[in-house]
Amino acid sequence: MGNCCEGLCNFFGRQKNTNVRISLPAVCFVWQIAMIILFGVFIRYDDESDARHWAEHKKSHNITSDIENDFYFRYPSFQDVHVMIFVGFGFLMTFLKRYSFSGVGFNFLIASFGLQWALLMQGWFHSLDHTTGKITIGVESLINADFCCAGSLIAYGALLGKVSPVQLLVVTLFGVTLFAVEEFIILSLLHCRDAGGSMVIHAFGGYYGLAISWVLYRPNLHQSKRLNGSVYHSDVFAMIGTLFLWMFWPSFNSAITDHGDGQHRAAINTYIALASSVLTTVAISSMSQKRGKVDMVHIQNATLAGGVAMGTAAEFMITPYGALIVGFLCGIISTFGYLFVTPFLEKALKLQDTCGIHNLHAVPGMLGGFTGAIVAAAATESVYSREGLISTFDFEGDFANRSVGTQGGFQAAGTCVAVAFGLVGGAIVGFILKFPIWGDPADDNCFDDEVYWEVPEDEETIPPVLEYNNHMIHKHQDISESNFSVEQS
Amino acid sequence: MGNCCEGLCNFFGRQKNTNVRISLPAVCFVWQIAMIILFGVFIRYDDESDARHWAEHKKSHNITSDIENDFYFRYPSFQDVHVMIFVGFGFLMTFLKRYSFSGVGFNFLIASFGLQWALLMQGWFHSLDHTTGKITIGVESLINADFCCAGSLIAYGALLGKVSPVQLLVVTLFGVTLFAVEEFIILSLLHCRDAGGSMVIHAFGGYYGLAISWVLYRPNLHQSKRLNGSVYHSDVFAMIGTLFLWMFWPSFNSAITDHGDGQHRAAINTYIALASSVLTTVAISSMSQKRGKVDMVHIQNATLAGGVAMGTAAEFMITPYGALIVGFLCGIISTFGYLFVTPFLEKALKLQDTCGIHNLHAVPGMLGGFTGAIVAAAATESVYSREGLISTFDFEGDFANRSVGTQGGFQAAGTCVAVAFGLVGGAIVGFILKFPIWGDPADDNCFDDEVYWEVPEDEETIPPVLEYNNHMIHKHQDISESNFSVEQS
Amino acid sequence: MGNCCEGLCNFFGRQKNTNVRISLPAVCFVWQIAMIILFGVFIRYDDESDARHWAEHKKSHNITSDIENDFYFRYPSFQDVHVMIFVGFGFLMTFLKRYSFSGVGFNFLIASFGLQWALLMQGWFHSLDHTTGKITIGVESLINADFCCAGSLIAYGALLGKVSPVQLLVVTLFGVTLFAVEEFIILSLLHCRDAGGSMVIHAFGGYYGLAISWVLYRPNLHQSKRLNGSVYHSDVFAMIGTLFLWMFWPSFNSAITDHGDGQHRAAINTYIALASSVLTTVAISSMSQKRGKVDMVHIQNATLAGGVAMGTAAEFMITPYGALIVGFLCGIISTFGYLFVTPFLEKALKLQDTCGIHNLHAVPGMLGGFTGAIVAAAATESVYSREGLISTFDFEGDFANRSVGTQGGFQAAGTCVAVAFGLVGGAIVGFILKFPIWGDPADDNCFDDEVYWEVPEDEETIPPVLEYNNHMIHKHQDISESNFSVEQS
Repeated sequence: MGNCCEGLCNFFGRQKNTNVRISLPAVCFVWQIAMIILFGVFIRYDDESDARHWAEHKKSHNITSDIENDFYFRYPSFQDVHVMIFVGFGFLMTFLKRYSFSGVGFNFLIASFGLQWALLMQGWFHSLDHTTGKITIGVESLINADFCCAGSLIAYGALLGKVSPVQLLVVTLFGVTLFAVEEFIILSLLHCRDAGGSMVIHAFGGYYGLAISWVLYRPNLHQSKRLNGSVYHSDVFAMIGTLFLWMFWPSFNSAITDHGDGQHRAAINTYIALASSVLTTVAISSMSQKRGKVDMVHIQNATLAGGVAMGTAAEFMITPYGALIVGFLCGIISTFGYLFVTPFLEKALKLQDTCGIHNLHAVPGMLGGFTGAIVAAAATESVYSREGLISTFDFEGDFANRSVGTQGGFQAAGTCVAVAFGLVGGAIVGFILKFPIWGDPADDNCFDDEVYWEVPEDEETIPPVLEYNNHMIHKHQDISESNFSVEQS
Repeated sequence: MGNCCEGLCNFFGRQKNTNVRISLPAVCFVWQIAMIILFGVFIRYDDESDARHWAEHKKSHNITSDIENDFYFRYPSFQDVHVMIFVGFGFLMTFLKRYSFSGVGFNFLIASFGLQWALLMQGWFHSLDHTTGKITIGVESLINADFCCAGSLIAYGALLGKVSPVQLLVVTLFGVTLFAVEEFIILSLLHCRDAGGSMVIHAFGGYYGLAISWVLYRPNLHQSKRLNGSVYHSDVFAMIGTLFLWMFWPSFNSAITDHGDGQHRAAINTYIALASSVLTTVAISSMSQKRGKVDMVHIQNATLAGGVAMGTAAEFMITPYGALIVGFLCGIISTFGYLFVTPFLEKALKLQDTCGIHNLHAVPGMLGGFTGAIVAAAATESVYSREGLISTFDFEGDFANRSVGTQGGFQAAGTCVAVAFGLVGGAIVGFILKFPIWGDPADDNCFDDEVYWEVPEDEETIPPVLEYNNHMIHKHQDISESNFSVEQS
Repeated sequence: MGNCCEGLCNFFGRQKNTNVRISLPAVCFVWQIAMIILFGVFIRYDDESDARHWAEHKKSHNITSDIENDFYFRYPSFQDVHVMIFVGFGFLMTFLKRYSFSGVGFNFLIASFGLQWALLMQGWFHSLDHTTGKITIGVESLINADFCCAGSLIAYGALLGKVSPVQLLVVTLFGVTLFAVEEFIILSLLHCRDAGGSMVIHAFGGYYGLAISWVLYRPNLHQSKRLNGSVYHSDVFAMIGTLFLWMFWPSFNSAITDHGDGQHRAAINTYIALASSVLTTVAISSMSQKRGKVDMVHIQNATLAGGVAMGTAAEFMITPYGALIVGFLCGIISTFGYLFVTPFLEKALKLQDTCGIHNLHAVPGMLGGFTGAIVAAAATESVYSREGLISTFDFEGDFANRSVGTQGGFQAAGTCVAVAFGLVGGAIVGFILKFPIWGDPADDNCFDDEVYWEVPEDEETIPPVLEYNNHMIHKHQDISESNFSVEQS
């Protein structure tokens, strides 16, 4: 028994080997081939993207113009969401001085895998045709696949700098799977509405990442402290990510809402909430520092909290000032999180959260879920009209008789389900990632692109040194000669 | 009297205190809370974004498809405009070597405040329902709010590096207010057309910023000369801003034009004019430098002049070659401005214009206004058709009998109104900003992020120095020893 | 004869003069003025962007809503394509340590010229109204003009760092001309389909650039070796280009496909193919390096190969798994190209290809052409329906009786035409560029912005040097004195 335990300890504690030359290509190839096979078996074009079916669909639905194809309702939003996933999340994670390649590059890798797996997982749960056994996809499926990846990308934020690309692919495989299940429970079984995913994306993704990071706690991470920070230009790069996330968040929250007023209202609410977050973030950031200096970490992150928190309620009639209040409060809460909660979590709970996703996604996502519950419960026929209520909350079929109060309760329950899935799922995935086969870096080797990337030598270091040397040598000779003569004389 | 004057001088000239720890949070909080209250009192969703009203609107207007919601006509352009405001203007101002945080960060802050205030101000002037006392907003309001901010962001270009964030918020508060008033005069009273805002945005914003900067003249600004310039990578960052402005300018000029041919034509004209500006900018830039070297300052700015100058005429039938000519001339004029006018203004008029907004916004905006006047006056029924004239120039209601010649005259008058508002408003705001309570930096402290931001220590500075030193010491010893022996022998 | 040859040798081999102060402005001005004149003679608004004609068009086509204007079908895709051309291609070419200004700046210049010339050239071949002698343009023309530039921008990738801006303008003038001719042959005479331009853009552009580069071979290019590489931040800048190309490629391939299911399907196929390329690129890149480190060159380029290869087949019913397979294979082939083929071409064929366009455009483009041929030949009525086949392959008019098999053959022939045009045209243009009048840099002066740009002095170099020197001098004196005394004693 003792021996066994010791053996285990050795197994888990042995010298880190970051060579991923076999594991990374193997995982990429095998999983990509699996995708091809599964796509071949399951995935087909939907009615609006299929040459035969669109013609039939137009006839049967009495559609006269191609502009009614869902493509034209959703494609601009889809492209904005796509930018958020790859440039937004990717560049937000370039802020570390020597981890920009991994920030943007591994984000690129795992999102590219994740969206394929998401098309399958979400398809099986939501759009599997039981007659044909096929999943049909269209532009809305692409948006949902991007959304589904977002959960795992958020989790990457907590793990940034501390894991290998192979581990990230594992995080994404399980993350997308868990996402599809919790989404099915929340949206289909509990019949919640969650257009911009405060619950299913942000609360889930945030707690998923935190739980993984908690399990993977590194007591000696301070050995990499020199690299766990930004430099001037890396902070500017990160602002590219922040701004594209911030600007396109209205598209994120409106991308899959109802055609017409639904998309229109979701965009307005999100736009307003985000503006409000910026002012309160700056206010708290400035208050917290001596001489009122603003901190880039807050600007890069907490300004986005309003968008996260409007994810559920954006399509509801929350009113413009309601949206402002949500943004106002979440900007404050998120900035306070960066100032006090993240340091506390690290000390008290042994939870290392590189990007502070607790403050940007987990908490605002959860608050967004509850905000949605309250706004849903407060909905009235006089505000929405009868048809408006039905279409906004999908009170149809089995749910035709649900009251708004009940809906509010289910929305709150949905938030709890998302958090629970994140915490439990993350803990399990964290333990899987502890196996010493994934090529993660040693404690003194974190936050360093050198481990997984061919990094170019820096222009500053090599040629100038030679120049300086020559320069110095001449200088030296002059001086030493003059010195010499002085001494001699 | 003498004492009083001296007292005043001391008051205005006393030691600068850049601590904004109280003023910045106070302004952010108070103004944001004011926004919430005013939004609560005034702002509601419009017919196309309200659950109840859109259903009613569809019925009453006999609309069969949700695709006719204004959202689908304008949302893609809105998002492009949004990118221009936050990434375009923001990154254009990252070109200074040590002021990139402030360039992109304070742009973010003031635009976020400005758009809220703009929704109110423009609402009161343009869409206040006098029965209900409410302003209703939709996607077109969001675009207009972004436009309204642009005026103040342009002004920031002249002030870049010399003002505090609190001052910028004041500039924005007054800038948006003045904008809404001049816009009301120009568009509603004079009934001008100004789709892309050559007059109301660029001429106004440009002269507004110049007047402020003129009042805030700093005779000893040369003390910060070491920081008033770019480095290699900051110039590349600025190109992100330039390109997003350049690429999306067709959306800017077409965002609020008439549905159908109006939006279509405005986009084409702007696209063409901008292409032409690039070639003449490169030509003049290369001619002006020894060995024909091109200057990044010109490429970053003057290439955009064609878009500014097409702001009014873009929706008119200016013809594609007309657009080319406008771009051709404005590229030349703008580049000449950077070469000769900006240095002249600084010497002769004591006018410090960090980004050269005189050449990019003020002059091309004014020229664009007059171009619009000429093109309007030259409009004929044979080119536009009768209905085309009416819809393009809105010859309806009180203005049903206006001739195109009269319209041209009013367009020219509108341009003068915009310039006058900018100059007078800017002068007044400049004097307000001279009060020594706003935390602006001292003359030897301008263009420096350190004043308002927590700036990370740079990786380059610390470790290499030590390395060089050690290296040098060894080198030195070898050489001095060998020298010594030579001398000795 | 010998004298003549010697004279020629001297003429071509004489000292390089990189002064473009006359040639660059002259070319820009003359060509831009020519554009204005030609636009004046030929170019007018089309039915959907003309105030008179759109009103008439609506009546005659019984269109009730402005949303049916082609603008709303294509403008979002147009803007995405526009971003790819200017930010995508531009920033992809910023990866060199000291050539970022030229990468993004000259890309900006030549695309701005190219799109004007393309509107004319493509207009003459495709939309010249023989009654009026006019070319009419709309949003689809703008997209096509951007596409047409892409061919020359791809060629720039092979020449990056080795040519002058004047040479690039010549490359673009001929590139656009050749493009319009080959496009006319392939699309109109051979009646091929090539929505995303695997053949007409990528295969043509790739081989065009390679042929030019082959003619301009520089045996002593190694003299600039120190600058032919990236630094950390230039690689991050290049990722901006990569990601915008990658994200917006679905818009590129769907921008000019048929309304409705055509655009929808093209976007889906491209999205899927690109995701697959990322995984195989990472896999091969990691396998090829010791310790499994990933190479930024591959991530920046080979991840895009799937988009290139889907250019022709994206609008066909290739099925989602077919798209995955195309992306899978092209990611592998492209990465292998960077690893083995580019070095081989340089050694064996004397072909210097700075960006490796052989691997990113030439080969995947050619493969995309043949993929399109196979998918076309395999089309069946049961999959497309009769109408679907007709609309997808335009089997109308003279081509009403063409079979899918014949179509496949013509698609393959079209690919060969594109390659042939690229190779022959490129060789001719290459010889034109050898004349020693274009201001190209010497072999030891390549990849250096200093040659054509006013480059700011670097913050790092100036002040620290002085500091070091002073520091060193003091250090030196201490040491030499102590040395001296030791020796003396």
